[in-house]
Amino acid sequence: MNEQQKILDTLLSLPLFQVCDEETLRTLAGRARIVRAEKGKVLFLSDDEAQAFYIVLSGWVKLYRETIDGTQAIVDIMTTGHMVGETSIFESGRYVSSAEVADECVYIRLPIDFLAREVKSNSDFAFAMLSSMARYRKQQDKEIEHRTIQNASQRIGCFLLRLVDPKHEGPVVVTLPYDKTLVASRLGMQPETFSRALSKLKTITGIRVKGAQIEMDGVDALVSYSCSACSTEFPCQGTE
Amino acid sequence: MNEQQKILDTLLSLPLFQVCDEETLRTLAGRARIVRAEKGKVLFLSDDEAQAFYIVLSGWVKLYRETIDGTQAIVDIMTTGHMVGETSIFESGRYVSSAEVADECVYIRLPIDFLAREVKSNSDFAFAMLSSMARYRKQQDKEIEHRTIQNASQRIGCFLLRLVDPKHEGPVVVTLPYDKTLVASRLGMQPETFSRALSKLKTITGIRVKGAQIEMDGVDALVSYSCSACSTEFPCQGTE
Repeated sequence: MNEQQKILDTLLSLPLFQVCDEETLRTLAGRARIVRAEKGKVLFLSDDEAQAFYIVLSGWVKLYRETIDGTQAIVDIMTTGHMVGETSIFESGRYVSSAEVADECVYIRLPIDFLAREVKSNSDFAFAMLSSMARYRKQQDKEIEHRTIQNASQRIGCFLLRLVDPKHEGPVVVTLPYDKTLVASRLGMQPETFSRALSKLKTITGIRVKGAQIEMDGVDALVSYSCSACSTEFPCQGTE
Repeated sequence: MNEQQKILDTLLSLPLFQVCDEETLRTLAGRARIVRAEKGKVLFLSDDEAQAFYIVLSGWVKLYRETIDGTQAIVDIMTTGHMVGETSIFESGRYVSSAEVADECVYIRLPIDFLAREVKSNSDFAFAMLSSMARYRKQQDKEIEHRTIQNASQRIGCFLLRLVDPKHEGPVVVTLPYDKTLVASRLGMQPETFSRALSKLKTITGIRVKGAQIEMDGVDALVSYSCSACSTEFPCQGTE
């Protein structure tokens, strides 16, 4: 399959682009390209003038902001199917955070001018983009809620529960999607805090940590410990 | 001035509605009403079917989510010119958080069906709504960043700096917009944590607290303490 066809297929698989007509998407795909990148590759820096937006095909891209002294705050970590950099069209054409490949990654780079034009000329697309931003807003609300109510161990438990297939019953093994330092950053913790909180979580819920794999006899202990400090019941919907 | 005219004037003063034609707004105003409410009045509960959205004219409305055991997490506190409940149109018509008057409040109650219709039929309105959601997203990103990087005293300092007119020079007095317990909740702190952090902030920056009033000789000490743990320089833009 050639590159343009693969890009077109990806666009057609995403709800946001399903409301565009195929001719428009074909033109867009012709102006896009697939990029393979190693950890550390910078997609863009905060406040850069936006030329492109991105769709992650595989791997991980971290969005972060940096203080003057270089401390990074991870805003989010994006993976397969996620869009990156698209909100720049509402920010005078500048990116509001920096984006860097966190783990070997394949993504599509698309021209940003398409988005603003399509939002203005296709009301279904505008509505789909609003829905997507509303979903993201809900997810951020949830993040702020967790930072307020949950302790560090409960936040790790919550992170693990999101990796479990909610239909699964009985013993479960989950694999951390990226390394522990990045998981800690994603959860807004220092690595030492993360280690201490993970030990406490093991004691309380009986989960077993073997490298990047976490084994548990079932999800009940984690659910009872983490979800008691959350406004949503397990399995949570629409907050991924 | 009659109520409908006041509602119409308010709509015309907000960037979001300036892209609607006046006849449409006149019809909308005819279906809206102004409500005065006391502290504690519930506008809606999370998961309720949405009938209305709201524009705050004065006072404060808190958005919150609640765990099963009744612990509240404040998602945001809205005031003059802010919209409340509008994202329900992207959430199968249900509210994603609860809203309650936090301090004597006047607001406009408007029918929610207007929003979805206007988003679909007026692309300028859709774009304006996307811009408004992007601004909110940026503000939430900032909140998550602060919860990650700033300590409790720095977060209080940041909150105070947002109350200062950035053009002002020399000694400043700011007044807390709502009571200290609510400020603590807004910042995601227990009241005791807030008290301790405020004492520490006084020692470090020399601010003086007199009830709801905070006096300082200038903003430099606060800026140097709080903004050093933030990716944005003082005065920060677009994060209100």
